[in-house]
Amino acid sequence: MFVRYFDHAATTAVKEEVLKEMLPYFSINYGNASSIYSLGRQSKRAIDNARMQVSEVLNCHPREVYFTGCGSESDNLALKGVAFENLHKGNHIITTKIEHHAILNTCKSLEKEGFVVTYLNVDENGFININELKSSITDKTILISIMFANNEIGTIQPIKEIGEIAKLKNIYFHTDAVQAVGNSRINVQEMGIDLLSMSAHKFYGPKGVGALYVRDGIDLKKIQDGGHQEKDKRSGTENVAGIVGLGKAIELAYKNFDKYNEKLTSLRDYYISQVEERIPEVKLNGDRKTRLPGNANISFKGIDRRSVIIKLRCKGNMCI
Amino acid sequence: MFVRYFDHAATTAVKEEVLKEMLPYFSINYGNASSIYSLGRQSKRAIDNARMQVSEVLNCHPREVYFTGCGSESDNLALKGVAFENLHKGNHIITTKIEHHAILNTCKSLEKEGFVVTYLNVDENGFININELKSSITDKTILISIMFANNEIGTIQPIKEIGEIAKLKNIYFHTDAVQAVGNSRINVQEMGIDLLSMSAHKFYGPKGVGALYVRDGIDLKKIQDGGHQEKDKRSGTENVAGIVGLGKAIELAYKNFDKYNEKLTSLRDYYISQVEERIPEVKLNGDRKTRLPGNANISFKGIDRRSVIIKLRCKGNMCI
Repeated sequence: MFVRYFDHAATTAVKEEVLKEMLPYFSINYGNASSIYSLGRQSKRAIDNARMQVSEVLNCHPREVYFTGCGSESDNLALKGVAFENLHKGNHIITTKIEHHAILNTCKSLEKEGFVVTYLNVDENGFININELKSSITDKTILISIMFANNEIGTIQPIKEIGEIAKLKNIYFHTDAVQAVGNSRINVQEMGIDLLSMSAHKFYGPKGVGALYVRDGIDLKKIQDGGHQEKDKRSGTENVAGIVGLGKAIELAYKNFDKYNEKLTSLRDYYISQVEERIPEVKLNGDRKTRLPGNANISFKGIDRRSVIIKLRCKGNMCI
Repeated sequence: MFVRYFDHAATTAVKEEVLKEMLPYFSINYGNASSIYSLGRQSKRAIDNARMQVSEVLNCHPREVYFTGCGSESDNLALKGVAFENLHKGNHIITTKIEHHAILNTCKSLEKEGFVVTYLNVDENGFININELKSSITDKTILISIMFANNEIGTIQPIKEIGEIAKLKNIYFHTDAVQAVGNSRINVQEMGIDLLSMSAHKFYGPKGVGALYVRDGIDLKKIQDGGHQEKDKRSGTENVAGIVGLGKAIELAYKNFDKYNEKLTSLRDYYISQVEERIPEVKLNGDRKTRLPGNANISFKGIDRRSVIIKLRCKGNMCI
């Protein structure tokens, strides 16, 4: 059945090639990666291969990649992990007002634990103000967490500039790149990123698996206790098939990235221009250029967003 | 290829029927369960169906079942969730010395946060002493967490008796049933269980998905912040395919349970008797009768456990 699916920001279907890679790990190579015999070692090798696939995209070492259960878990581990491990250095965290709930609500939790959080403003296009960031830094600041690209309006933040400031001030820089991985080129070295969260289901991989890049030398307090999986940063039997899927999905996402990105950007711009031309009183939210290639966020004057969805559904555009 | 796999305590292969149920949720019904249009609602319905499948086995209400990323996460959520939510009532927790690391290391973390943990002894067959449990209870005790069955020696604890004591003293009773679900009949009402952890990959479901039963009325402090999934007890986009797999796997595990259990028990006893008969100086660890049907844990005098695995591997018994 042909589905005109309009919400790839919420989730994506698992690509056929990704699922094909995953399948053997359900019922043939089903070993527990902690088992020391062959079936277990096979799983461990498969996980290490996925770690390499991620590291090649991010330009980091495979040992700096840790697998988690989802993007939200990656965000929780990054923020709480850094915060509690570095409490002796300071208790101040800087983030923005437009982060995903996985960041905002984690910050709220940390505030209850005695941390102080600055929530940066954004301008009408969704950008933070670099000067506001600079002036927010105190000698208690231990972490800056600013999303790579917004999950609703698609605005891409000046990540490299933020990374430079963080490095200069010797503060860890985490970016929630859940919405960006697969849609933006990311280079943790050039961009000065210390920690980065991603989620497979946003780039044609499976749900239920995420990853966190953690620069070598950064210690995190564990948030999930148990066995010593993921170099003792995340306990729990590894989701081998899911991890294999994440690895394959990220590899494919960056295989023909420039061509795909270009096509998507031109489709996006065509769509936006057609909506603006044909429908009166619409407003594009976010920046016209510095936004995710697949993102168009438009307000229609006088119509509630739920009504738009219901009306589109009736046209057969939003569902099967 | 025929595999004589000997370590179903570590993990199991995903059953064909389970994988078949999961497949559509990767690439056809791939909606985000939080999306309000049809594709999302389909995923929500699939999750609710799995919740029902779990509840039918445990004899609880579907709304008392929460999905997580693995058994370790369920254990962490149960212990930390109850502990931090009930700190005003007391700071004492009772567990055993032979719990899985997901419990033991979570208890160690809680001790650092000011909680006091009593680790009950076990006898030579692995059983706790009910009198020791009773005498350990203080007016500060808020939680008893005792595993249903041990993951190494297979000993099944007197769960119903523990449940009765906990109820009488008005203390929450959590059981780590990761090793027991699929292998023991469980009835949370009859056994007085308030919280119960499970992991799909132990009963022919996929890795990367677990569940936690939480009796109505018990509040937990969240450990993973973010969106309001799982009635705000566990944030993160739901692993729909994994949850569907968990539901189907638990349904199948209890479909012909008595017959399967009987067969497995007789195979176990035959295996143990043959080893004892043919090999000198072996010792069965755990109780001969009150143990998981598929569990045989045997020590061979003078031989290290790793050597046994390597020798079995060379015989082709442990690997493909």
